[in-house]
Amino acid sequence: MSIITLTTDYGLKDHFVGALKGKILSQHKEAVIVDISHNVDAFNISEASYIIDAAFNNFPKGTVHIIGIDIELKENNQHIAIEWNNHFFIAADNGILSMLIQKIKPQKIVAINIHDRLLPKATDMDVFVTVAIHIAKGGSLNVIGKEIKQLKEVTELQPVIASDLNSIKGYVVYIDHFGNAVTNISKKTFAEVAKGRPYEVTFKSRKVKTIFSKYSDIEVADKNSSTTAGKHLAIFNEAEFLEIGIYKSNPKTGSASSLLGLRYRDFVMINFNN
Amino acid sequence: MSIITLTTDYGLKDHFVGALKGKILSQHKEAVIVDISHNVDAFNISEASYIIDAAFNNFPKGTVHIIGIDIELKENNQHIAIEWNNHFFIAADNGILSMLIQKIKPQKIVAINIHDRLLPKATDMDVFVTVAIHIAKGGSLNVIGKEIKQLKEVTELQPVIASDLNSIKGYVVYIDHFGNAVTNISKKTFAEVAKGRPYEVTFKSRKVKTIFSKYSDIEVADKNSSTTAGKHLAIFNEAEFLEIGIYKSNPKTGSASSLLGLRYRDFVMINFNN
Amino acid sequence: MSIITLTTDYGLKDHFVGALKGKILSQHKEAVIVDISHNVDAFNISEASYIIDAAFNNFPKGTVHIIGIDIELKENNQHIAIEWNNHFFIAADNGILSMLIQKIKPQKIVAINIHDRLLPKATDMDVFVTVAIHIAKGGSLNVIGKEIKQLKEVTELQPVIASDLNSIKGYVVYIDHFGNAVTNISKKTFAEVAKGRPYEVTFKSRKVKTIFSKYSDIEVADKNSSTTAGKHLAIFNEAEFLEIGIYKSNPKTGSASSLLGLRYRDFVMINFNN
Repeated sequence: MSIITLTTDYGLKDHFVGALKGKILSQHKEAVIVDISHNVDAFNISEASYIIDAAFNNFPKGTVHIIGIDIELKENNQHIAIEWNNHFFIAADNGILSMLIQKIKPQKIVAINIHDRLLPKATDMDVFVTVAIHIAKGGSLNVIGKEIKQLKEVTELQPVIASDLNSIKGYVVYIDHFGNAVTNISKKTFAEVAKGRPYEVTFKSRKVKTIFSKYSDIEVADKNSSTTAGKHLAIFNEAEFLEIGIYKSNPKTGSASSLLGLRYRDFVMINFNN
Repeated sequence: MSIITLTTDYGLKDHFVGALKGKILSQHKEAVIVDISHNVDAFNISEASYIIDAAFNNFPKGTVHIIGIDIELKENNQHIAIEWNNHFFIAADNGILSMLIQKIKPQKIVAINIHDRLLPKATDMDVFVTVAIHIAKGGSLNVIGKEIKQLKEVTELQPVIASDLNSIKGYVVYIDHFGNAVTNISKKTFAEVAKGRPYEVTFKSRKVKTIFSKYSDIEVADKNSSTTAGKHLAIFNEAEFLEIGIYKSNPKTGSASSLLGLRYRDFVMINFNN
Repeated sequence: MSIITLTTDYGLKDHFVGALKGKILSQHKEAVIVDISHNVDAFNISEASYIIDAAFNNFPKGTVHIIGIDIELKENNQHIAIEWNNHFFIAADNGILSMLIQKIKPQKIVAINIHDRLLPKATDMDVFVTVAIHIAKGGSLNVIGKEIKQLKEVTELQPVIASDLNSIKGYVVYIDHFGNAVTNISKKTFAEVAKGRPYEVTFKSRKVKTIFSKYSDIEVADKNSSTTAGKHLAIFNEAEFLEIGIYKSNPKTGSASSLLGLRYRDFVMINFNN
């Protein structure tokens, strides 16, 4: 079985996603195609980077992930294929894999160089499809590209660790469907800096002293309250990033994004007490 | 073949649905996964209850239906698995199966008790996935849960039959994509009370004396009119619930919901004449 | 393998799409079902016509395409099945295949006549599903319908070629996810009329003298500009129709539709110089 996942900003109204699946099935009829998201904001590298990072690890080893965001081939936007933790990623080298590569070093990166072997009418996505099917069928990265050592990184949204190691300043990189605000502070970074010290998480004018590991922990922590629905809280989410949320939030009535005013690129501080 | 359907309030932008499919395929690579809806309003039990009821019967016997709405495990929200009409449902015991169980008694209900057997990091959805795959592979409900007799029911939205049997008062439980208003009055309940008597259906200030069996019946019934597009009507829809609609409605220009002012939880009366 | 694609105006919230897939899998468990779009505007023949035309050719020969828009069977809206370029289409005869049949003559058209063979409760979509599975399993069109010679065409949106062959007047038939405006002027029509002459494309108050073959061509053409993002341009898109776009447009910040004011049914002129 070969699974190919799709993450794009194509939306679900146009013919684009259907056409892409038709291309894959035309060349590899046994492919199992799984949508991760087609609703990434147009050209939004940061959103796509978070979504693919949060999703990929749930798939079996050997899965091929096509990331179709801002993929037009240009001198400063080459096509790349990556082997990373035994998953394969095909994307443009536009920083979109920044969140992934913070965690583990890629096993192999190649700059795709098969463009001349395709028909002149071939689109950028045709290149991605050809590479994806090559890999899904067990083909080697070296056949379709030239090894390179370095990927472009988007550094402006990295969390900043204070030089005295007493705080981490992170940013909101994604607002999810429930209106929760996901930051770029990973559980790993937190643990390395915290070293078990007590802490305060500050966002907008709010403070919390506990980062839960799931939403309903607030019911245990707060069991003397008459209601916990609607309370703000901080958790490490399934993707292991710090997330600010409202318990049982509904975007229509009020969420972290709407009630607390947390927006894309707003900052969140963690201060440690000695 | 084992089909697993998914009904959630996860939305289609985030990584959640892709991650869920990845988890299923990691454990059961032959699974055929079918989306029913991921656009249920957040935590809306009533919507989910209608959608799953309207969809499930179109699938083959043996299909496993995962319902991922408000599933965090708590003392008063246990995880259950049900066999019902040879379909299997995995959900939280939060009333979400109320519409289904009005029609037929479940063959078997178990409270899932495998939580201790999973890794400490396992999420509530990991529990559902494990159970779904167990059932999809032919496993027995008794292996993954303890039999219970009763499900929680949401009774506030049940239709009310007058004690003199001369009327049924129902409620709008769902507004569909075309803006049509679906009520909780089933064709079965109607037939049992009507016993062939003439009737009037009243909603807001409108009345109709016929419940059609499909939308275009209005063209036959109303063939002297110059146009039938835009007329209000009542039908029993495919899911066999009473639905108030506008013929050829387009939510952008005007639907039952917008033109007649019918909203979620509004009531609809059927009065019978002796 | 048999692929069945789906193009409907059902939306993705209701149970309709899931139910449709359940019906197909109940009758043909090996079917590979691919969504093209379920977000066609309600009853919008023109949108559906463009989407299916742009998508179908990416699928392997033998694919069966179900088009579920405005399909209620009526005297003037019969159900048809078409073989065209070795693809199969099942639709209502409401003009929805107008854009396709401009390009190539259908190999065979039948008016579906199996309605009496199905259960009285069968819906219009049940008819389509039955026909789709018959064809997907290799069945002949003659078994399920009676051959006819002519389809309904929607002519109001055809491009108009001036009698002196010095201009083509086309219309916007579709606004895509990126806010780009797709017209009904095909590359084929353009080439036949242009015969290599220079030209100007006019839309609203703008003019361009080049139709690119992909978006990033503007970076090459315009390499002395400090920025090309946000510039308007004309291309022949993947479906080979003239499209007016904004380079790297984001519908949230500004697109051809919002910035240039191009809307559905607006006209676009191509004038040729002798």
